Amino acid sequence: MEYPSKLIEDAVNEISKLPGIGKKTALRLALYLLKEEEEYTHTLTQALLDLKNKTRYCKTCNNIADSDICSVCNNPHRDLSTLCVVESTTDLIAIENTAQYQGLYHVLGGVISPVEGIGPDDVNIDSLVNRLQQPDNEVNEIILALSSTMEGETTAFYITKKLKEFDVKISSIARGVPIGSELEYTDEITLGRSITNRKDYNHGQ
Amino acid sequence: MEYPSKLIEDAVNEISKLPGIGKKTALRLALYLLKEEEEYTHTLTQALLDLKNKTRYCKTCNNIADSDICSVCNNPHRDLSTLCVVESTTDLIAIENTAQYQGLYHVLGGVISPVEGIGPDDVNIDSLVNRLQQPDNEVNEIILALSSTMEGETTAFYITKKLKEFDVKISSIARGVPIGSELEYTDEITLGRSITNRKDYNHGQ
Repeated sequence: MEYPSKLIEDAVNEISKLPGIGKKTALRLALYLLKEEEEYTHTLTQALLDLKNKTRYCKTCNNIADSDICSVCNNPHRDLSTLCVVESTTDLIAIENTAQYQGLYHVLGGVISPVEGIGPDDVNIDSLVNRLQQPDNEVNEIILALSSTMEGETTAFYITKKLKEFDVKISSIARGVPIGSELEYTDEITLGRSITNRKDYNHGQ
Repeated sequence: MEYPSKLIEDAVNEISKLPGIGKKTALRLALYLLKEEEEYTHTLTQALLDLKNKTRYCKTCNNIADSDICSVCNNPHRDLSTLCVVESTTDLIAIENTAQYQGLYHVLGGVISPVEGIGPDDVNIDSLVNRLQQPDNEVNEIILALSSTMEGETTAFYITKKLKEFDVKISSIARGVPIGSELEYTDEITLGRSITNRKDYNHGQ
């Protein structure tokens, strides 16, 4: 695509590096900025710079935080006995938005992926072990909320092995047919697993 | 949605003001920036600020330009006898990318829309008239490439009236069934017009 201005071309090239944004969308966004008040470009770029420069990671759980300890770890109403292991802050936010979980988190910052050269030392598993070794640790259940991909399962397996020495229950989030979706459109693996892992009706679902 | 950090919330709010980007996508983009090298955020924000602060508009045609006169108007190989009137630079770029047009442009910067309070004086129609009044003007055909919406047609009608006094041919881009699309899926209005405005087969299509 040809652009009438080098400045537009530069902006489009930078914007289109963002995930899910192609050249056409990038051009639309660049032209939108040109049309809008100057103030908006300034507040937008300032917010992005602040995000990058000022954001810290929680020293306990590696969640994104405004201070040393994140808002979840700092909350006195959270259940200190349960720890949910997630891959990223995005997943943490998704679980928080269900309002169904009151425990703490541990953000791995990635999953083990030999193909991409990401080993166990590249994700925050050591700090998880370290948390359980603390004398004031109250955790008695660890919920693995990882993707059911090869990488997610590898990571779950590795964590389970690493935590063998501790007296904690390890569970995984339930896999099965999503609520509201129809059986006939559910993929075979999910449906197959949902039958294998069926639950007693009396125990609810 | 709740965010673990005020900085993320601010960034998400600013990003989601962009057209076609909701809170979820904004969050994904913000987390992507957090994950990437610091340098990327810097080049991205700098490109956006440069775009907004340094971009100029061509004094002749109102196209986006790096200097006083845009690259199209500055190009000695362009055909000075044809002028294509478009609503925005996006439309100009779209036409340029067809590589089918060698003439000049005039960018209106909007269309007349009484509903939104945009009158004839808010779009660059006066400067179009002014161009035609110049002694060195060579334009003998004006192509109206405006959307076939109510606003586009109103603008086209207004321009046609304004240019009555000049000795120029005024044409409009062809409307019809898009190339490659099937008749049965074409909307009634387009199909109806394509029959009314049918072309002699000998003159090609």
